[in-house]
Amino acid sequence: MAAKTSETLDMNAQQGFSSLLGKRYFNYGGQGPMADSAIAAFTQAQQKIQTEGPFANAIYQWLLTEGESVRAAIAQALGASSQTITLTENVTIGCNIPLWGLPWQKGDRILLGDCEHPGVVAAVAEISRRYGLEVSTCALADTRNGGDPIAVIEQALSPNTRLVIISHILWNTGQVLPLREIVACCHANAPHTRVLVDAAQSVGVLPLDQPGWTLPETKADYYAFTGHKWWCGPAGIGGLYVRPEVLAEMAPTFIGWRSVEVNDEAQPTGWKPDGRRFEVATSDYALWSALRQAMTVQATWGNSAARYARICTLSQRLWTGLQALPQVACLMTQSPPPSGLVSFQLLGGDGQPSPDWHSALVESLEAQKIYVRILLSPNCVRACVHYLTLESEVDDLIVQIKYWLRSRPDSSDS
Amino acid sequence: MAAKTSETLDMNAQQGFSSLLGKRYFNYGGQGPMADSAIAAFTQAQQKIQTEGPFANAIYQWLLTEGESVRAAIAQALGASSQTITLTENVTIGCNIPLWGLPWQKGDRILLGDCEHPGVVAAVAEISRRYGLEVSTCALADTRNGGDPIAVIEQALSPNTRLVIISHILWNTGQVLPLREIVACCHANAPHTRVLVDAAQSVGVLPLDQPGWTLPETKADYYAFTGHKWWCGPAGIGGLYVRPEVLAEMAPTFIGWRSVEVNDEAQPTGWKPDGRRFEVATSDYALWSALRQAMTVQATWGNSAARYARICTLSQRLWTGLQALPQVACLMTQSPPPSGLVSFQLLGGDGQPSPDWHSALVESLEAQKIYVRILLSPNCVRACVHYLTLESEVDDLIVQIKYWLRSRPDSSDS
Repeated sequence: MAAKTSETLDMNAQQGFSSLLGKRYFNYGGQGPMADSAIAAFTQAQQKIQTEGPFANAIYQWLLTEGESVRAAIAQALGASSQTITLTENVTIGCNIPLWGLPWQKGDRILLGDCEHPGVVAAVAEISRRYGLEVSTCALADTRNGGDPIAVIEQALSPNTRLVIISHILWNTGQVLPLREIVACCHANAPHTRVLVDAAQSVGVLPLDQPGWTLPETKADYYAFTGHKWWCGPAGIGGLYVRPEVLAEMAPTFIGWRSVEVNDEAQPTGWKPDGRRFEVATSDYALWSALRQAMTVQATWGNSAARYARICTLSQRLWTGLQALPQVACLMTQSPPPSGLVSFQLLGGDGQPSPDWHSALVESLEAQKIYVRILLSPNCVRACVHYLTLESEVDDLIVQIKYWLRSRPDSSDS
Repeated sequence: MAAKTSETLDMNAQQGFSSLLGKRYFNYGGQGPMADSAIAAFTQAQQKIQTEGPFANAIYQWLLTEGESVRAAIAQALGASSQTITLTENVTIGCNIPLWGLPWQKGDRILLGDCEHPGVVAAVAEISRRYGLEVSTCALADTRNGGDPIAVIEQALSPNTRLVIISHILWNTGQVLPLREIVACCHANAPHTRVLVDAAQSVGVLPLDQPGWTLPETKADYYAFTGHKWWCGPAGIGGLYVRPEVLAEMAPTFIGWRSVEVNDEAQPTGWKPDGRRFEVATSDYALWSALRQAMTVQATWGNSAARYARICTLSQRLWTGLQALPQVACLMTQSPPPSGLVSFQLLGGDGQPSPDWHSALVESLEAQKIYVRILLSPNCVRACVHYLTLESEVDDLIVQIKYWLRSRPDSSDS
């Protein structure tokens, strides 16, 4: 009876997600599925702009209001104020804004975690080339099974460390970093040490509006995120939170009419007073309405704490099932990831992870409309569970992986 | 008969644009109306991504193909090759890419035309602050009635001029600058002098795929444009053309996974070989399909030369009608603008332009669903005609302006 009630709950969670029909979707870290009502919100906003504009005073005023609404919704979900929020096209642009906005001095140092996204790694390399910065990397991936990420970072800090870049949830292992403690450690290093957080995997997963979790409490300086992963919003909208205390030291880099105040002759007179100073120019404004609706859909199911609890329950279920398969090794070995990201390797005949098997499994599952993804560093397969994943889907994924391992063309069992 | 045939042609041009029903739209320079089929292309692409993905190998491959297709369509419209094209969110980001990508040296000089957009002006001010550059402005606006913009620019160049920033069509006056001659003049100034063109108003208006007009022929170094104005595409997509000969000297600034090649371990190994190196990360990919369809709709009506001829015919009609009104003074006094932008001022009792009247007229027209816009520098009203504007709409606009001038509350005629 308990299982049945739980499954009924699951089914409710997927109501209104036509995009989930006929498939098993475990790729939430890439892009999430959109609720029908979020797609409808997009279409309606686009229609309104076209019908009442597309460019007219009335529509411009409406867009200002919509912009305020989506900033407010995002801010609330992060426990922050609207003024701290910049709307961006994606999480990577959110990372680039502080990366290029800090007043770099030759010899300044950037400390990167070793699980950062290739796009951010490439941006850091270019900044270091242009400004003569030192870049070093610290080994956080290895802390996933009982290590101490705070100690690893602390040991890697130096007096000239200007910026530390980490992810709140590591995209390859699913590990959640103790953000508050790491930030405290970095801020204690030197008055100029700042922390940039890639929140691609944490926004929409962690209950950031709950006491103890909010961004102001973490004291993170910059927190870049996306709307299209775990918030299940449309692709092409993300954002950046900047701690008010560090806003003034950072200058906008990519700049346009949305960044500035102008006088009666349209001449720029200064930056917008808040996070809008890092916004540039025309965007696909209908995305704002769609993201807001996507967030409303999630909130209707349950608050952020309930959703996070559900995610952890499901990732534990998936992790436990995978750990029980003889040829599967999860990247986290001691406990399930306290996030929705469950990464694992398939062990070949020599007991070593087999990249070929990883590719073949992902392809085989996709042919059955079961969506997971491959990661390259470390080479593994990642399956994600969200609050709206069904328990039956998790169980089915485990069974399909088991079948695949048994029926591989080169399997010794066949 | 001729007029009737012409009007029939006009009506055909608006077929499939539900967004134009019940209104007179003269604001093409802000955002253009979207064809129903362009909106449908967006919806279908979004649906496909959600149904077959949203993130999956098959969809990723499809997105690569779609990206190639839209780059190819854009390139063809500019007489250029796909490799020269970067997809951006808007024209301003297209301007920011070379602005921040050039290897600036302290003391380098930027020469700006005096009709550049406030967003670009603000970006230049910040770059000059950071790198210690000199910025000067040259008076192009005053050349609109018989002056020589080439001579104005030539006189303003100096040996340390590294970058000249102009618009191909001036957004406030509608003047078309002789781009090929200006670029030749700038390139003759010094081997390091580059020309950045804000093409917000020219792409979709000028027949840039026709002999004598193509970007390679102009030798412009950077040409930044948007899809949502005269191409009537969706908001949130634009692009940048970079002349192949100057690609290597310019580094990407905002950087993400779309900018780089990676190795088997997902480590960046270098920039993408072409314009994609300036693209960053996830966008609203459905915009690509919508823009391509918007361009197809225009091409179905007639080729770029025919559309440009039609635009000039209509702007002449509007300009002639406005010039005949006693209290109206067009910014271009000697001949109609050879573009779709017709700007004019209302002359008050003292014979001077009246900003209050400009605001009041725009508001009054918008209340009647006639859309024009106000500009602040110089303070004026701008009405735009596109290939799909009807002659009857132009005539109606002139009549409405005439009525408004007569019936103003403070009118001496009343």
